[in-house]
Amino acid sequence: MNRILLPVLATLLLLAACGSSPTPQSDPAPTVDPVIEAIISQALADTFALDALRELCDEVGPRLAGSEGMRRAHAWGLRRLAEAGADTAWTEEVMAPRWERGVEWARLTHPYDTPLPMLGLGRSIGTDGVPLEAEVLAVSDWDELEARQDEVAGKIVLFDPPWVHYGANVQYRAHAASRAAEYGAVAALIRPAGFGQNTPHTGVMRYADDQPRIPSASLSSEGAALIHRLSDQGVKPRVALSMEAENFDDGPCANVLGDLRGRELPEEIVLIGGHLDAWDTGGGAHDDGGGCVIMVAALKVLNDLDLRPRRTIRVVLFTSEEYGGQGGDAYAEIHADEIDHHVLALESDAGCFAPSGFSVKADSLTITELAPFAAPLAGLGADNVYPGWAGVDIGPLVEQGVLGVGHRVHGEEYFRYHHAPSDVFEAVRPEDLAANVAAVAAFIYAVADYPHPLPQPKDD
Amino acid sequence: MNRILLPVLATLLLLAACGSSPTPQSDPAPTVDPVIEAIISQALADTFALDALRELCDEVGPRLAGSEGMRRAHAWGLRRLAEAGADTAWTEEVMAPRWERGVEWARLTHPYDTPLPMLGLGRSIGTDGVPLEAEVLAVSDWDELEARQDEVAGKIVLFDPPWVHYGANVQYRAHAASRAAEYGAVAALIRPAGFGQNTPHTGVMRYADDQPRIPSASLSSEGAALIHRLSDQGVKPRVALSMEAENFDDGPCANVLGDLRGRELPEEIVLIGGHLDAWDTGGGAHDDGGGCVIMVAALKVLNDLDLRPRRTIRVVLFTSEEYGGQGGDAYAEIHADEIDHHVLALESDAGCFAPSGFSVKADSLTITELAPFAAPLAGLGADNVYPGWAGVDIGPLVEQGVLGVGHRVHGEEYFRYHHAPSDVFEAVRPEDLAANVAAVAAFIYAVADYPHPLPQPKDD
Repeated sequence: MNRILLPVLATLLLLAACGSSPTPQSDPAPTVDPVIEAIISQALADTFALDALRELCDEVGPRLAGSEGMRRAHAWGLRRLAEAGADTAWTEEVMAPRWERGVEWARLTHPYDTPLPMLGLGRSIGTDGVPLEAEVLAVSDWDELEARQDEVAGKIVLFDPPWVHYGANVQYRAHAASRAAEYGAVAALIRPAGFGQNTPHTGVMRYADDQPRIPSASLSSEGAALIHRLSDQGVKPRVALSMEAENFDDGPCANVLGDLRGRELPEEIVLIGGHLDAWDTGGGAHDDGGGCVIMVAALKVLNDLDLRPRRTIRVVLFTSEEYGGQGGDAYAEIHADEIDHHVLALESDAGCFAPSGFSVKADSLTITELAPFAAPLAGLGADNVYPGWAGVDIGPLVEQGVLGVGHRVHGEEYFRYHHAPSDVFEAVRPEDLAANVAAVAAFIYAVADYPHPLPQPKDD
Repeated sequence: MNRILLPVLATLLLLAACGSSPTPQSDPAPTVDPVIEAIISQALADTFALDALRELCDEVGPRLAGSEGMRRAHAWGLRRLAEAGADTAWTEEVMAPRWERGVEWARLTHPYDTPLPMLGLGRSIGTDGVPLEAEVLAVSDWDELEARQDEVAGKIVLFDPPWVHYGANVQYRAHAASRAAEYGAVAALIRPAGFGQNTPHTGVMRYADDQPRIPSASLSSEGAALIHRLSDQGVKPRVALSMEAENFDDGPCANVLGDLRGRELPEEIVLIGGHLDAWDTGGGAHDDGGGCVIMVAALKVLNDLDLRPRRTIRVVLFTSEEYGGQGGDAYAEIHADEIDHHVLALESDAGCFAPSGFSVKADSLTITELAPFAAPLAGLGADNVYPGWAGVDIGPLVEQGVLGVGHRVHGEEYFRYHHAPSDVFEAVRPEDLAANVAAVAAFIYAVADYPHPLPQPKDD
């Protein structure tokens, strides 16, 4: 396929940037860097990543921080890092929240009885083992809640905002419960921050300290729209909600790490990572099993080709991203002494669709300097380097000046799977997974083996 | 939009067929039959159908034959037929099975605990109020069941055949329970006869008289694949299944009918229909709320334009199609004396996507004779007339010689919604619904007003 052929012109940019080979000025047919070509070919041919993703999604399965599944994931990570050829692989303890969903359901009870697809929101309280049943007040947004605050007491408030984008809609997931509780609601439901086919989407919510804690759950977009339309028709819909959800004290969990020690500058670290924890409702394939697998498999590709770059490549599989980034915080704390040894941190946590490039949390000059490292990935469609988000888990490093890069994919369909039961193994296309491994392996090799100092964020 | 413009060339074919206007041989710009044009324009502009579908899906809601929802649907049908201008609207009692789903769930319990999206199959027994838990034997097809019959006793058998097409895969839905019970299975699960996003699909199953009755349910394709892959890895997956499903004695239900009496040949009946019952898991929008609404709305379009065709148009909203066609059987019995007065029967039960034409259960000469009636629908993309299926509910009429026609749509995505929780109001695109009303209204007007004897199936 055309997408997986390496355009020679793009390769020249890398060669020029790396200075590893003179540009053949006398010959108009440019040469292809055989190392980069080999990395990409190896990544596209290897089935390690696909099998590792299958195993993580199917056999490890659900893996919220602090759960039994997360402990299986630790073992998976250590074993897969060893198979990938890490010189060392280890875990680092992280104290993380623990929450269990238990059995849960919602039903429309008036004007008729029918099940409503739902998922309790992460860290929500439950209904104390007794179904909670009440009339539903459907509102479109915070403004309508404020305008109708006198109607809220004793009701379940449903927030059914139009879909804008994740960043906008996720505010309702985070704050619906406390905003509704302020006016006496007994529970909060949301249209999810995502879409699909009558698909609810979970995700973490947060209680305000100064409001009563009420149960909070996601319906599907269609379920929310049904209730909203019924309300608009003058029906007073009622819903029954049953949730066994329970919060526990923070407990020990772990990040999983593996180093491929650099051959010349081992103290300089190129960190690559994803988060190993995943919501308990599917396989966590796109979020973020794919990201973890890409990083481990990228290491394996370099090892399979006996490529040992100048700098150390460190894979970090973070825990507890979904509860708020406790794994990333812990990494920055544990490694506080060596943060300035981190020359770049790359996170993949935007789904495992076809690669598109890299978003960089830095000034425009640094981004321009970084672009040549991705240029050879044009054949994969992954050479787009632009300003943007790097990642939750590497956020604490980026805040302390580390160059933060986000692995980007064509994520138009991401919110069909994100935090939903549909985020299972077969939701990731094998060819996309392989292309992501190719893009990341080639990029980090170019970065980690670069014979000059790497671009670093400039002070403004 | 181009699709909803009436091509004048196609109209000429109808004019020629109907003999209502001479072809303007001297003018290369053909005229458009103003009546057909008006019917299509009226249908595309009217919002009656969309509101009726919303009301049926949202306010009537789930409506299995014999249920309280079906009684709401009877009232909806009578009222909407009256609004549409039927001269008379009435119900005719049908004895139909009654089955209730109750609360149900499935969980994978080994190698870890996680919910599995599921729907009990229609008319399955339940688990007697106690979850049933057993190891799962996953097989790909009947042949593998036979080959592994010695492994079945005491297990839940999962049938996970590759998706071929509905007609092939639905055999597993129908017969999985009894085939597995023959070798001592305690329950049967299926990969659904449909697809989606971790979506289970229900539908009727049948017990063989000579085998023990065991509970039977649909998983999602992804859930079935997960269990199958785990089995392939040597894991012995276990599933817990809880179903409150219960069968009751046949009870009274009803077809809902409405006549627009013909102005010249009232004793000749053009029957148009869909089925009013729907699975209890969504709104029954595509299956077959849309079909019912199309027929009622087509009647309204003719009335709005004061068009009263020569022959009687009879709308029949059948009950209990999903349980096996008891409504269609009852209609043929009740109207046994006038079956030879039915000059054509048109059913819409293939989803409510963009119209494509009409399939005809008749010889090729009759199909050729019928094609001109649909030719003016080329602008809607609905002029394709070809041999094929007519419909379950009109089947008994067709068997007795009535010309049977199926309303056809672009149904590539139908089995994403069919018998699934995703078959809700917004799964039908308003423009598709309107185009279907236009196509059916224009077609049945041309048929019912045709000044000559209508084409009839020839004896072979």
